[in-house]
Amino acid sequence: MSKIISGFSKFTKEEKINWLTENYFHNQTETVNIIKQYWNVDTKLQELHDDFIENTISNFYMPFGVAPNFVINDRTYVIPMVVEESSVVAAASLVGKFWSTRGGFKTTVISTTKIGQVHFMFAGNKNDLETYFNQNKTELFAATASITKNMKKRGGGILDIKLIDKTAKLANYYQLHVTFETKDSMGANFINSCLEAIAKKFEKDDIEIVMSILSNYVPECLVRAEVSCKIEELGGENPQKFAEKFHQAVQIAEIEPYRAVTHNKGIMNGIDAVVLATGNDFRAVEAGAHAYASRNGSYSSLSHCSIDDGVFKFWIEIPLALGTVGGLTALHPMAKLSLEMLQKPSARTLMQIMAAAGLAQNFAALRALTTKGIQHGHMKMHLQNILNQLGANEQEKEKIIKYFETRTVSHSAVVTQFNELRKPKINWINFLNIDDISERLNTLTKITKPVFGKMNGQQVIEHLSLLMQISNGKIDADYYVSDEKTARRKPFLDTDGELHIGFRAAILSDEPTPEKFNSIQEAIDDLVVQINDFKNHFTETTTENHPFFGELDYEYWKKFHVKHFTHHFKQFNLL
Amino acid sequence: MSKIISGFSKFTKEEKINWLTENYFHNQTETVNIIKQYWNVDTKLQELHDDFIENTISNFYMPFGVAPNFVINDRTYVIPMVVEESSVVAAASLVGKFWSTRGGFKTTVISTTKIGQVHFMFAGNKNDLETYFNQNKTELFAATASITKNMKKRGGGILDIKLIDKTAKLANYYQLHVTFETKDSMGANFINSCLEAIAKKFEKDDIEIVMSILSNYVPECLVRAEVSCKIEELGGENPQKFAEKFHQAVQIAEIEPYRAVTHNKGIMNGIDAVVLATGNDFRAVEAGAHAYASRNGSYSSLSHCSIDDGVFKFWIEIPLALGTVGGLTALHPMAKLSLEMLQKPSARTLMQIMAAAGLAQNFAALRALTTKGIQHGHMKMHLQNILNQLGANEQEKEKIIKYFETRTVSHSAVVTQFNELRKPKINWINFLNIDDISERLNTLTKITKPVFGKMNGQQVIEHLSLLMQISNGKIDADYYVSDEKTARRKPFLDTDGELHIGFRAAILSDEPTPEKFNSIQEAIDDLVVQINDFKNHFTETTTENHPFFGELDYEYWKKFHVKHFTHHFKQFNLL
Repeated sequence: MSKIISGFSKFTKEEKINWLTENYFHNQTETVNIIKQYWNVDTKLQELHDDFIENTISNFYMPFGVAPNFVINDRTYVIPMVVEESSVVAAASLVGKFWSTRGGFKTTVISTTKIGQVHFMFAGNKNDLETYFNQNKTELFAATASITKNMKKRGGGILDIKLIDKTAKLANYYQLHVTFETKDSMGANFINSCLEAIAKKFEKDDIEIVMSILSNYVPECLVRAEVSCKIEELGGENPQKFAEKFHQAVQIAEIEPYRAVTHNKGIMNGIDAVVLATGNDFRAVEAGAHAYASRNGSYSSLSHCSIDDGVFKFWIEIPLALGTVGGLTALHPMAKLSLEMLQKPSARTLMQIMAAAGLAQNFAALRALTTKGIQHGHMKMHLQNILNQLGANEQEKEKIIKYFETRTVSHSAVVTQFNELRKPKINWINFLNIDDISERLNTLTKITKPVFGKMNGQQVIEHLSLLMQISNGKIDADYYVSDEKTARRKPFLDTDGELHIGFRAAILSDEPTPEKFNSIQEAIDDLVVQINDFKNHFTETTTENHPFFGELDYEYWKKFHVKHFTHHFKQFNLL
Repeated sequence: MSKIISGFSKFTKEEKINWLTENYFHNQTETVNIIKQYWNVDTKLQELHDDFIENTISNFYMPFGVAPNFVINDRTYVIPMVVEESSVVAAASLVGKFWSTRGGFKTTVISTTKIGQVHFMFAGNKNDLETYFNQNKTELFAATASITKNMKKRGGGILDIKLIDKTAKLANYYQLHVTFETKDSMGANFINSCLEAIAKKFEKDDIEIVMSILSNYVPECLVRAEVSCKIEELGGENPQKFAEKFHQAVQIAEIEPYRAVTHNKGIMNGIDAVVLATGNDFRAVEAGAHAYASRNGSYSSLSHCSIDDGVFKFWIEIPLALGTVGGLTALHPMAKLSLEMLQKPSARTLMQIMAAAGLAQNFAALRALTTKGIQHGHMKMHLQNILNQLGANEQEKEKIIKYFETRTVSHSAVVTQFNELRKPKINWINFLNIDDISERLNTLTKITKPVFGKMNGQQVIEHLSLLMQISNGKIDADYYVSDEKTARRKPFLDTDGELHIGFRAAILSDEPTPEKFNSIQEAIDDLVVQINDFKNHFTETTTENHPFFGELDYEYWKKFHVKHFTHHFKQFNLL
């Protein structure tokens, strides 16, 4: 069957889900339930979210967390963070608090210029092109008048249009390089509309427009965030040593691309979380930031560190093209809420908040890496995630977290520990409680059938008595068990393990021994005698030979009998 | 008031929300409602999501959409996409379908090696270090035995450990550069645990470990995706021209960083959507991809295009370090569902699916850019978003979308159009319905006060009669209105506009004319006569002069009277 579908986008949401689950999932009902359990109960709200993109069938929950205590230019913020990675919010919170008592983050916007380009091909004389451009430059601005009208009111608009010759790199290739100020809007639509209007005006027979589009490379839309304090204020056991190692780690990220990429990835953990929370476009921000990191020909760190005159300083410069109006910012109720949480910042202020969040994340990562190692914190979260995955309850989580405080977390180790905890508890039979076992055994008859094995109700009582008599010295288990075997087998008696079904000491025959007594009652009476004799026997002797476990003392014999009674009581549903 | 808080992370979710909304929001109740309306009704499910990160207070909905009809290596996929940007899923769907009939996507995994490094400082003799490393290399592997045990079972593990001298770039700086195969897991925890174990083993007095950490730069974890067909199969009006322009656009992205960044950003729109949907880490993927794009010293395009022997070929090579086991993949129910939708792929298969999604997105963007321009499609979605923001209903959306089919979308233009549509509808008075107007006017008395203006109940009836007599030729409005003014004023009578409050023709005095008739009834009777005469008058003549609008024919006089009656009926609450 072909799974190519026509007209899918015209289907209703229900129809889409039906077709999808019918063709691509094994358990259709369960899948539909999962998809729908994420729908909002408020139909209108759900419709709003469905309309953000196309072919929407559900919501993907990204956790919305908050990092309090960020002091940025003397104002305190709680930073909203949307991120699926554990530790990011915790790290931000810790570092926010840490720097709040050391002067906080100092941030400045360096520049806010955005860029767009009209790419075109021109095969003629360059001077003619320059003349044409210069003669028509005013017209190019004028062509955007209706688009720029509102932006101009807000203090933005087109800053300049330049003709750039790129023919050295690609034959006949030129650009109109246009710079913009878009104030509080990210400006993608605005810039693209302007560029298309400019291109339409500029185009003529010998000028072939290839495309008109904004650039996400915005090295002149730059923000700086910094923290600094005297080295001794860094605290900890050895602040000087800490500062030096931290400095080394930043230096390494400055010169080693393999490290720089991960270093900057950590910065983006913080920045993207705020980008997402405020309804901005993280792909745009990511592209701009990483391209900026590679601007000098070798991919390098976005953050830097210095130690001068006993002062530790750590800062970042990063391009961030953001919006606090337009797009999703006003449309997504949680994005709107994020902006309100940030006290309705301008785009400039948001740039500074994000830079601080990025720097904080980087500080946390470098601090962890250069001290305890990154796995320490990660593993705690990793453990938490595995426990959630296993569906552990609060008590189980507590026990297992305690267990792993001193042990290495691995998926299999956690699963083992969890299974151990969940293992059904055994109702061990206390065979020394004569009344209890007599009462239970009294329910048996000669014809009671076992759950497993071949013995009947009376034979099992006589069998228990046999092993009891081996332990009380009346029967000699004349079966040699080597010391090596004993050493290997005996520790089992210390564990919670049960005797396996089918376990049978080598001296016992395959078929049950025929009944010795005339009735169940007589067999029970005999067993009680043997138990009492067992208790007394070890006042005279120290060990008796077990046909499988070897020489056992009183304690180990008791352990054996507990397992043995439990095993056979289970065999007859007496537990 | 200081908004610094201690012990925030120990608060319950409710306590966190209370503190936050009390201190950072104006309307606490409303904010709490917004936060909670995004909670899942299933408490246990919500707890699962809360535990993914720290300080979680709610869920941020990312739309979960699907792009069907992706044929990749002859297998058909529906690709799950989590993205907040409009057009991405629509573009993917269109391009998936497009290539499904042209051989689909051909993909190959080039390599799957991941990288981690132990960064350390060593001030001694390099030869000594090399000797130490070579003598202990086996031990370094052995140190990770317990960590690599399970990974080895799955065919992965540590591939090699190399000592690298970086002292030329930074004094005393060396690395252990470790390569890994992590099979279906992204492997971050695994790699970091191995590195920390190696570092611990390797460390000694004169070797100072700075940090041990995986690299997100994975140029040897590479996948390739390609589409190709004969140029004439590209379809459209001029496939040759299309192919050439498309090729030019790719060439531009190869040599121009400003364009390359946005070009690659578009690729990442597709890739990140799948990264998010499958519970992978988009910051890691972004960092790796953009660093790879800058590997040759100048930031460049990740995709390439060729036209040879009449064949159009378009391909991408991109590093993607992904997991289909571990992490969020199994933990997030929608990530799990995404992987099932993709027929439970290995990490290798997922690399190929994502590369195809990225290439598709790039194809869509370049196709739009080099033909209709990017704004065409964007603006449709932009319009949709503005309409949602305004709370437009389905009928309103339909009307406004139709309206903007031939007009430029801007926020203010859409708002204007929307307000126009929402404007309360006017109950125009049909003055020719004598019974209706008589009945309404009968409710007036000489002392009825108007809502605005100075006339009383009888004066307004006599005023309506006056204008009616101007139109039926009994009173000559001897007031000259120039042709220019008439041409400017008359079109208003064709619109839905009402006469403004305070509108008064120049011939009328400021104060109301004293009553002419003895009673309301007589005034009404007169008005009825004048209306009937108006109807008959235009069988004899074609136009009459209006003191404000100039020469009007019967149709325009009727339009005027409708507005005039409506205006004055409103004045006395008679609508």
